[in-house]
Amino acid sequence: MKKTALIMAGGRGERFWPKSRKSLPKQFLSLTDDGRTMIQLTVERIRPLVEIEDIYISTNRDYKELVLEQLPDILPQNILCEPVGRNTAPCIGLGAMHIAKKYEDALMMVLPSDHLIKYQKMYLHALKEGFRIAEKGRNLVTIGIMPDYPETGYGYIRFRPEETDGGAYAVEGFVEKPDIQTAREYLQTEEYLWNSGMFIWKVSSILQNIKELLPDMYGGLSTIGEEIGTEKQEMTLEKVFPQLESVSIDYGIMEKAKDIYIIPGVFGWDDVGSWLAVERIQKSNESGNVVKGNIITIHSKNNIIQGGQKLIAAVGLENLVIVDTDDATLICDKDSTADIKMVLENLKICNREEYL
Amino acid sequence: MKKTALIMAGGRGERFWPKSRKSLPKQFLSLTDDGRTMIQLTVERIRPLVEIEDIYISTNRDYKELVLEQLPDILPQNILCEPVGRNTAPCIGLGAMHIAKKYEDALMMVLPSDHLIKYQKMYLHALKEGFRIAEKGRNLVTIGIMPDYPETGYGYIRFRPEETDGGAYAVEGFVEKPDIQTAREYLQTEEYLWNSGMFIWKVSSILQNIKELLPDMYGGLSTIGEEIGTEKQEMTLEKVFPQLESVSIDYGIMEKAKDIYIIPGVFGWDDVGSWLAVERIQKSNESGNVVKGNIITIHSKNNIIQGGQKLIAAVGLENLVIVDTDDATLICDKDSTADIKMVLENLKICNREEYL
Repeated sequence: MKKTALIMAGGRGERFWPKSRKSLPKQFLSLTDDGRTMIQLTVERIRPLVEIEDIYISTNRDYKELVLEQLPDILPQNILCEPVGRNTAPCIGLGAMHIAKKYEDALMMVLPSDHLIKYQKMYLHALKEGFRIAEKGRNLVTIGIMPDYPETGYGYIRFRPEETDGGAYAVEGFVEKPDIQTAREYLQTEEYLWNSGMFIWKVSSILQNIKELLPDMYGGLSTIGEEIGTEKQEMTLEKVFPQLESVSIDYGIMEKAKDIYIIPGVFGWDDVGSWLAVERIQKSNESGNVVKGNIITIHSKNNIIQGGQKLIAAVGLENLVIVDTDDATLICDKDSTADIKMVLENLKICNREEYL
Repeated sequence: MKKTALIMAGGRGERFWPKSRKSLPKQFLSLTDDGRTMIQLTVERIRPLVEIEDIYISTNRDYKELVLEQLPDILPQNILCEPVGRNTAPCIGLGAMHIAKKYEDALMMVLPSDHLIKYQKMYLHALKEGFRIAEKGRNLVTIGIMPDYPETGYGYIRFRPEETDGGAYAVEGFVEKPDIQTAREYLQTEEYLWNSGMFIWKVSSILQNIKELLPDMYGGLSTIGEEIGTEKQEMTLEKVFPQLESVSIDYGIMEKAKDIYIIPGVFGWDDVGSWLAVERIQKSNESGNVVKGNIITIHSKNNIIQGGQKLIAAVGLENLVIVDTDDATLICDKDSTADIKMVLENLKICNREEYL
């Protein structure tokens, strides 16, 4: 069966401010040493499994030009621009409709555009296993990540350790972000994995699930689907898509669907969730500083410094994140990266759109 | 007797990097809220006592244009450009020669160009008292500052508390920068004041002292003095000045001279010796941050942030000095400001002259 992929690239990535902006979110940035952007790496990573003409990019229309520029090999008609953001269920449904239009049925991977993978071959192995399971029936397959610690910022997936099929386990259920105590308990049971937001299924399987669990959405998606390839395609999308319920695929489908499998992903996954991730991705020097750009450090240790052309002199500093861009500089204690959103709130309140 | 002033403006001010540069030292910067530079404030401050045509600026030739630009009312022939820096004794001697050429004898103040004074009227009162004493004889007068704490970065002057003349005390002796234990002892005696580097005397008094205590220097200065106003002025200065001994007025004259008076200066003096001075000069907000420019602070306190056009977002920071300029940004722990010189050393070693 034909293998296809939908890469979701509509996110705003506020946690990487000031490098990420409304006009240039995280997935379009390079945070690794090699210069390729997150979305470019995402596409390259799956190329051994999926033909370029079968890769779809779902994004906000504001980012269409960025996608065309960074991924010139993607077919322009495969760049699916949502008129408004409606969370992941409508986004995935729209992708499924496009693929169904082209191939009737096909295998479909759904992937975030802003995660990093360390071990490429192991990653492909997991995806192949996902395709194998998905092709067998109406099931839905997800990739789960082995938790390193009781993270409260991710959803968790409970599986049945005794019920296996090759590299996959049957899923008992999806659960939302837990509190720290609950997260600790999850880890102790040894029956929970992190929800990575990566899914594999047949187009027919996901559409059937949407039809049963989100019938109104299915109706809207069908209306849009009928006009794909016609003159009315854009107009219909414009009219119908905004009316779709804004709901995540996790809440709308995965928490309610039956016959779900999970493949434990062991391939060095990183969701690059904040500036602190840079420490995991890039090499630190002997003082524990991760520096990029034109930097002088004096008696400074364990800092993340992302500079540009401008010289940055760090003297007597410890545990800071310093990010310089052409029009804004962030200096943030490592323990306060969650407060970066307060800077953005402040900018919004003050109508300083140019910095958002 | 005619009152004149020599303002010394040849310093490099490395401690205010990155705002101060070789090409724009501290005395040419504005560190206060009102926008006037240190040297402009210095000139304005003494205008009630000295005519503009009697104010001399001693500087390095590299800064002649800056002086002309910032002090357009100063007579161009009163800008005395040293071919090379030779410390304060030759600098003051050259100034004295120029004044002697014009007036034969006159009262002469010598002032640094990069200090701040809070109470203007009290300052003028001290200077007037200095002129009064200086006019009486061959004595040398200095302004001493009441020590707040046992500073080890200044020279100290011991006076005789029982030997007074109006607001002045007879000086027992000049001493160089003490260690902390000695500085503490000085404070306990209640007989020491800080050496502010401000002096008042008759031109004839200082020249007579130079003649007696630094006879070679006096010879060189006389040669230069003879040609002032002639075609050979520049050539002679160029030839003779570099041969003068490089010695401070404190070591060369004040530590050895007799008949010295000190006037305790009580007028809110600040030598603005490092970025930490900005806290004393500018108002802090309720979080203890002293901010200037385009700044957002979130959960940050007791920082000094000097920005420019670029937005600086400070998140979770404490006790830092942040200074942004067009081509360099300094981020420095308040306890490490003395290490800023290591940044400059590093830049010198790497031949990155553009940042010096």
